[in-house]
Amino acid sequence: MKTYNLCLLGFGNVGKALLRLLVEKRATLRDRYGFDWQITGVASRRLGWIAAPDGLDPETLLRGELPAPMADTGADPVRAWLDRARADVLFENSSLNAQTGQPAIHHLRTALELGAHAITANKGPIVHAYHDLRDLALQHGKRFMFESTVMDGAPIFSLFRDALPAASIVRFRGILNSTTNYILTRMEAGLDFDAAVREAQAIGIAETDPSADVDGWDATVKVTALATVLMDSPLDPAQVERSGIRGLTGEAVQEALAQGFRYKLVCTAERDEAGSIRARVGMEKVSLTDPLASVMGTSSLVHFETDVLPGLTLTEHNPGPKTTAYGLLADLINALR
Amino acid sequence: MKTYNLCLLGFGNVGKALLRLLVEKRATLRDRYGFDWQITGVASRRLGWIAAPDGLDPETLLRGELPAPMADTGADPVRAWLDRARADVLFENSSLNAQTGQPAIHHLRTALELGAHAITANKGPIVHAYHDLRDLALQHGKRFMFESTVMDGAPIFSLFRDALPAASIVRFRGILNSTTNYILTRMEAGLDFDAAVREAQAIGIAETDPSADVDGWDATVKVTALATVLMDSPLDPAQVERSGIRGLTGEAVQEALAQGFRYKLVCTAERDEAGSIRARVGMEKVSLTDPLASVMGTSSLVHFETDVLPGLTLTEHNPGPKTTAYGLLADLINALR
Repeated sequence: MKTYNLCLLGFGNVGKALLRLLVEKRATLRDRYGFDWQITGVASRRLGWIAAPDGLDPETLLRGELPAPMADTGADPVRAWLDRARADVLFENSSLNAQTGQPAIHHLRTALELGAHAITANKGPIVHAYHDLRDLALQHGKRFMFESTVMDGAPIFSLFRDALPAASIVRFRGILNSTTNYILTRMEAGLDFDAAVREAQAIGIAETDPSADVDGWDATVKVTALATVLMDSPLDPAQVERSGIRGLTGEAVQEALAQGFRYKLVCTAERDEAGSIRARVGMEKVSLTDPLASVMGTSSLVHFETDVLPGLTLTEHNPGPKTTAYGLLADLINALR
Repeated sequence: MKTYNLCLLGFGNVGKALLRLLVEKRATLRDRYGFDWQITGVASRRLGWIAAPDGLDPETLLRGELPAPMADTGADPVRAWLDRARADVLFENSSLNAQTGQPAIHHLRTALELGAHAITANKGPIVHAYHDLRDLALQHGKRFMFESTVMDGAPIFSLFRDALPAASIVRFRGILNSTTNYILTRMEAGLDFDAAVREAQAIGIAETDPSADVDGWDATVKVTALATVLMDSPLDPAQVERSGIRGLTGEAVQEALAQGFRYKLVCTAERDEAGSIRARVGMEKVSLTDPLASVMGTSSLVHFETDVLPGLTLTEHNPGPKTTAYGLLADLINALR
């Protein structure tokens, strides 16, 4: 049985959840998919570049007992690290840079050049370098996978890649930012905007500066990623018509509810007659009978209209770090089988 | 480019929709999946066994201009027919026999024994012979595929086979019979049970004898098929606790609505502590905020709880013969790639 060398770039909540899931599923991976794994590299801004070609003990890593990082990584640390770790697979979970996608793009590119599969939960590379990375992977006979970039571990990308072959998307519509959806849900319960934002911050789903979520940037990046990959049409986030939920008052939320509507931050993308994609992120008053209205809290949903299925909706409920980690694990299995 | 010989057993609405879809997608199949096809066999109770190893013209078939059937098919007509048609793939769309699964099981078994892929929209073989047919396919290096048996062309089986590897289902809950869901929807609009049944019959979604739908038999067969395949645990329809919607009054429907509930025929399956499956089909009063409540008309839904994703819901809207045909086409592509 082949044992693959896995390298984790980023070792926060998601990286740790992935490691726990790999341990939990080791027997299934051996028995059902015929492979085993070992961790030969862990890296983060805080930890430095740790490489151990003979493998690191998962339990020791999870306890936070980490060996010393590489002392000299030269001009291109990620290359030196992957090389030293003899990486077969890179899990790229560094933080998002929505403007450039870097340094994640460089990390993924380096892994593919060195002959490793490149798996990421980072949306930046999809938005800024999807076609390049896809072609580079093809060229090296490796896989570039990114299931966890949108709707955590819910199988959106693999649905169209594997389960819906030859289907062509006409349009999609969804709720893809869980922070704003949580805020809107809490405003329905009576909180005003600021109080709902503070609560989202307190439970760790909104940043200190919540603007990436509340102004619609995160949703914009996600709708761009979905359209780029699933409609195979490069789209720049700047081409997405964008607005957020800032300025919405508790009174407006209650008034809409009384009329049978609720506010949602809705993402849409559609192919126009000329074949180009028109995409939009904005607040909409949706009817309580609209499937989008049933998505509460941190859940998310995407509804597809295709040339072969009139309507298919995928809803993910109550995601957490394990959900994102599962998307990464599914990518690993699909890359290796 | 390889050209595959396709044989259609059953040439009603679904068989014809499949043929139209094959024509519509021919360029995509060639360009994206690298294969071409020809129809070398068509058969039904009415048409007899028609075989033409050099291929039949799709447009001629769709106009209903069919060549003469085989004169002498011997003791095992399906074998003689598949053999004469040099079948690479059998599409089995004969009518359902929920009690035994025959003769569909024999058709599929014969195709696999002759080295053809076996694809069906017929639930009977799943319920009565899933493990046998799966093992026979493995043994012959061919595929046994059945995406269209539950929720038409919505990717339920391929979701877990391809997109959700290593996920283990704890329980699922769904609305899987569209006829009863349509009847319940129309009763909410004010019709009584008998009038709603007559309307469903008039638009062709209920049989002259509607008992297979209204007494929960169709839903029972579907919940059995899902549990058998997705929870890898043989289940007999007789083990499913079953009731239907007969006896429900228009008054009860309106009273429930006024209280914020609607009646639905709900399918559930769950693994108990001992590892066996408990399944149930029965009418439930679901809250209007329950995702199941949003499924109206002929749409359907299934909600999965797994060990890795807390909740994933798939909803299919407004299916038709093309939707079922698409499930068969997706099976073909996945069998051949």
